[in-house]
Amino acid sequence: MKKYKPIAIAISGKKKARELKESVDARVYSGHDAQKKIAAMKDYDMLVNAIVGLSGIDATLEAIKNKKDIALANKETLVSAGEIIMKEAKKNNINIMPIDSEHSAIFQCLNGEKKSDVKRLILTCSGGALFKKTKEELEIVSARDALKHKTWNMGDKITIDSATLMNKGFEVIEAMWLYDLPLEKIDVIIHPQSIIHSMVEFNDGSIIAQLSNPDMKLPIQYALSYPERWESPIESLDFAKKLSFDKPDLDRFPCLKYAYEAAEKGGSLPAAMNAANDYMVQRFLNGQCKFLDIQRVIRKVMDEHKVIKNPTLEEIKKNDNRSDYYG
Amino acid sequence: MKKYKPIAIAISGKKKARELKESVDARVYSGHDAQKKIAAMKDYDMLVNAIVGLSGIDATLEAIKNKKDIALANKETLVSAGEIIMKEAKKNNINIMPIDSEHSAIFQCLNGEKKSDVKRLILTCSGGALFKKTKEELEIVSARDALKHKTWNMGDKITIDSATLMNKGFEVIEAMWLYDLPLEKIDVIIHPQSIIHSMVEFNDGSIIAQLSNPDMKLPIQYALSYPERWESPIESLDFAKKLSFDKPDLDRFPCLKYAYEAAEKGGSLPAAMNAANDYMVQRFLNGQCKFLDIQRVIRKVMDEHKVIKNPTLEEIKKNDNRSDYYG
Repeated sequence: MKKYKPIAIAISGKKKARELKESVDARVYSGHDAQKKIAAMKDYDMLVNAIVGLSGIDATLEAIKNKKDIALANKETLVSAGEIIMKEAKKNNINIMPIDSEHSAIFQCLNGEKKSDVKRLILTCSGGALFKKTKEELEIVSARDALKHKTWNMGDKITIDSATLMNKGFEVIEAMWLYDLPLEKIDVIIHPQSIIHSMVEFNDGSIIAQLSNPDMKLPIQYALSYPERWESPIESLDFAKKLSFDKPDLDRFPCLKYAYEAAEKGGSLPAAMNAANDYMVQRFLNGQCKFLDIQRVIRKVMDEHKVIKNPTLEEIKKNDNRSDYYG
Repeated sequence: MKKYKPIAIAISGKKKARELKESVDARVYSGHDAQKKIAAMKDYDMLVNAIVGLSGIDATLEAIKNKKDIALANKETLVSAGEIIMKEAKKNNINIMPIDSEHSAIFQCLNGEKKSDVKRLILTCSGGALFKKTKEELEIVSARDALKHKTWNMGDKITIDSATLMNKGFEVIEAMWLYDLPLEKIDVIIHPQSIIHSMVEFNDGSIIAQLSNPDMKLPIQYALSYPERWESPIESLDFAKKLSFDKPDLDRFPCLKYAYEAAEKGGSLPAAMNAANDYMVQRFLNGQCKFLDIQRVIRKVMDEHKVIKNPTLEEIKKNDNRSDYYG
């Protein structure tokens, strides 16, 4: 706040908000709808939504109604509420720019191309920290092992999601909504070096790919600069690494498969899957369950979930924080 | 002719032309300006110029004056007469579509992007058949060795040009003219698998690349289909190969360096370089000289050539067939 001097701040705690009001020269919103109030402001150009969790959905929806373009890093917005969000975005003619290396890559690969010419999207996937572990090794892997993720420097939650391939599953669902393509046109390929950030194959067999050193500054900047490109501080790729590719192993890492299934069945199922994953990853990080319990509980929740077609936002949110449910 | 039933045919030999006239139902042009006559016809959409040699220039120029878009496979057009050709194309508002896997790739990577955002073009290069030979081995290599070129199935002349890297030098000059970029923004990288056909790096550090199995059907079709993409018979890339990269060795393969120099000095020098190369490659294929004589004579010709600024087409053509000169 001291460095960037924002004109407004949202914070959930009311007490902290009162303290802040005294120390900074900014509007301070607080409480459970603080983000919505920020999103409803008139004096901004674009909403950059980088909140973690379901609460990010409210801010996205509010900004759409407020006719603001959105740069989206919050995964839950599209994974759990993609149908609602995209319907509103279309109605209000709002662009949703992805802040995610894979979706930014696809966006760039589609520049100047026609969607009707797209044969398939190819999302690249580093494979995660446990890519080479056997099933037996996965049974006993610790959170600490799983957090050793090489190519991207990320938070703990997403690092575990990368290790289970659930993160890639989320990205498949996001790509389906962002690019309005059927699931059978969205493929995933393992690419451990994380240099090619994703690709688009066209119906003539030509593939357009986007490459760079793995650095989130690029997709963040692109979401802000588009349709311009600005000079950036990221280093030019030196092509010193060999680029290799592999197929995802859905036997050891079934969460990717579950995400396709959840997206296919639709309704409230992706939200239920996401909520179960949230809960179990937290437990794993706390040392309260085993790595493979994450996928087992997600499978169980998806099997037992009664799918609600066209769920409301309230129905989607009900999936969250249901620790009782996972027993 | 039997399969495609062309409406017109050009052939240099007058006697063959007379025979053809009796056996096919098509206009038959003959003589040294036969191609020009074909290019001057009104009833076609696009000139596909796939002639080898300097004589390709006349057909290109004629089509430009005839206000026809051009799909260009003839290298000499731009290498030797780029200045003349591009000036005429601009004046007549003619698109020149490259039929060349590298330039087609760059064209595709630039789709929807701004030229002012381009940091550099990166032309990929298989390295040619002699990429791994030492200088000593290059002294004694035979035409037969050099013709063992793996990734592309090409004619003898271009296979030798690939082995000397002169072909890549030609492509650098072509890229300079096609994309109107300074030479310092055109780089070459060795990529032995020929899967990435070329790339464009933008000023934000993002690189867009075009990939496919190496198959000339794709760039040929793209030149015809653009701005559409058509279904094609080429096989989808299976990503089974590792993609590797290396720097070109300008010590063993200096022709690439000579091409940059010829383009930099400009005028009649690229045409002189091209003519010397044509002559020497033919000698090498005939077993009349050694592999390294190609680069030695090109160097000598470039050193002795008196550069004519803004040469006419006649002055450019004078460089051709000057066997006396190379003595």
